[in-house]
Amino acid sequence: MPGGADSLAYALIADVGGTNTRIALADGAAVLDSTVKKYSNREHPSLQGLLTQYLRDLRVDRCSKSAVAIAGPVRNGTGGLTNLKWEINEAELAEITGASCARVLNDLQAQGHALGRLGTEGIRSILPGRPAGGNETTELVIGVGTGFNASLVVGKKGSRLVLPSEAGHADLPVRSDEDWRLSQFLQKNFGHASIEEALSGRGLEHIYQWCCLEAGQSKLADAAEIVANCESDPLARAAMVTMVRLMGKVFGDLALVHLPFGGIYLIGGVARAASQFFEEFGFQEAFSSKGPLSDLMQEFPVAVIEDDFAALLGLAGHLSELGDEVS
Amino acid sequence: MPGGADSLAYALIADVGGTNTRIALADGAAVLDSTVKKYSNREHPSLQGLLTQYLRDLRVDRCSKSAVAIAGPVRNGTGGLTNLKWEINEAELAEITGASCARVLNDLQAQGHALGRLGTEGIRSILPGRPAGGNETTELVIGVGTGFNASLVVGKKGSRLVLPSEAGHADLPVRSDEDWRLSQFLQKNFGHASIEEALSGRGLEHIYQWCCLEAGQSKLADAAEIVANCESDPLARAAMVTMVRLMGKVFGDLALVHLPFGGIYLIGGVARAASQFFEEFGFQEAFSSKGPLSDLMQEFPVAVIEDDFAALLGLAGHLSELGDEVS
Repeated sequence: MPGGADSLAYALIADVGGTNTRIALADGAAVLDSTVKKYSNREHPSLQGLLTQYLRDLRVDRCSKSAVAIAGPVRNGTGGLTNLKWEINEAELAEITGASCARVLNDLQAQGHALGRLGTEGIRSILPGRPAGGNETTELVIGVGTGFNASLVVGKKGSRLVLPSEAGHADLPVRSDEDWRLSQFLQKNFGHASIEEALSGRGLEHIYQWCCLEAGQSKLADAAEIVANCESDPLARAAMVTMVRLMGKVFGDLALVHLPFGGIYLIGGVARAASQFFEEFGFQEAFSSKGPLSDLMQEFPVAVIEDDFAALLGLAGHLSELGDEVS
Repeated sequence: MPGGADSLAYALIADVGGTNTRIALADGAAVLDSTVKKYSNREHPSLQGLLTQYLRDLRVDRCSKSAVAIAGPVRNGTGGLTNLKWEINEAELAEITGASCARVLNDLQAQGHALGRLGTEGIRSILPGRPAGGNETTELVIGVGTGFNASLVVGKKGSRLVLPSEAGHADLPVRSDEDWRLSQFLQKNFGHASIEEALSGRGLEHIYQWCCLEAGQSKLADAAEIVANCESDPLARAAMVTMVRLMGKVFGDLALVHLPFGGIYLIGGVARAASQFFEEFGFQEAFSSKGPLSDLMQEFPVAVIEDDFAALLGLAGHLSELGDEVS
């Protein structure tokens, strides 16, 4: 375990999700496997306390650099986790870690920085796409988990930009009477028929509740139950069919807006769970049904990132590219 | 008029819209005003012929560089104008102009390259936004004219990227019963309820037709008439109200997807005509009504580009930044 006088050689990286936080040390672009620790957020009062405790446990006094990826909006170096009221800024992170270079990123941006660094075993192909003849420098990461978000990755290696977004708060698309009834249900019960109110963990619960109401039943279930019961419970199955098709429509719209000929990479527990049903429940048709541009839609590769440590890998890679500049 | 032995000093630039083409010579980043000519596309069989004729008329044998902006999709250096079946690629452009560096861009990309080069008199502010504390390097150009498209401009000066999109083919948002009836009308009559089928010149005609049907009338009018009659014809007025509110919703969704804290710049005749009615018909409310993120929406500045020559300016600027590299 690194520590003492050598500790300055390492960077601190933390991936703060809606439920769990993963913290590790990195040596250049390499995440040190033996230092990875996973914490349940609700057992800790603050992220500052958690990071301090981690460094104390590993007997690290001071880090060379530090970066936190947070599953919430980041503005001007301050990021927050909406559900827990956790907030951290780059000055605090620099103080806690002693690092001269500290970065707070959105978690999707960290995933974006991981593209090109993941082994093939960490990526599962869903749609192959078609070779794009030199336009592969645009990629899109879409995260569906506790929330929904997307991050665009553009430019050639070395000058690559990974851009933040709040795509989950855009309007849910409506293409059928069913879509419109669901959208009204979300608007009425959850205030805004945004993408995230349907495509997220709680979104799956909302869709299930709506499917039950459509069938004249008043039932609730949590997201994990719904996924587990897709074979046995026709209403869980109906909810998953609805979610898969909405994913197709939403991802298709984002593809038209961003033209990610280099690929669409899905992350997050809900995307991963739903992707098992993509073929059976018509994901590709929903994705590519875009009128005169339906043929263009065949060009975008779609894949699922299976590597749970992709965000940490992205943070380490990003910090290593920053060189030795001071934050 | 430049010509003869000196002609190699100048670049050829052309802005190919759905209806008209503007061609000019540029000296570095400066468009030579006296060389600007405007042509009606339908009077010319091909863009290649038009460019050749322009160079002959100006007695220019050979250009240093050349760039064409085209109001249609561009892939791998080939751009096409869907309505006229005009197509041009960079190799042809290099041959016609004798330039070693030839570029074919989407017209929205050319507008993106014009940002930062326009005088204040060329830009009219619609919403002021709020200072974004260093995040102003992301800007979004949205064009509503013959078609609908958008282009993201990211990165700091010198390494700025101007990205293409096909945003006009994404689904039209549906937030009300009226929206849903309009969306179904577009789907039934025009094959796909895309943004462009509502927000474009023909889109305004579609909306007018739908407003008339809603009022139990079967009427058609062209876009220019509808704009001209907004005060006198209640159905033209209703169509414009619908268009302005849809613009608010669509531009708001694009703002959430791209986070253009540097500003949203509107171009195109339809955007310009509709912008006169933004205040009266509730553009800002439609734009910023995004549930929990409604406050964030106040941060994005929105402006209209009034300069008809912005695309030419963008092309000249882009070519001057390319240096003397060979295409």
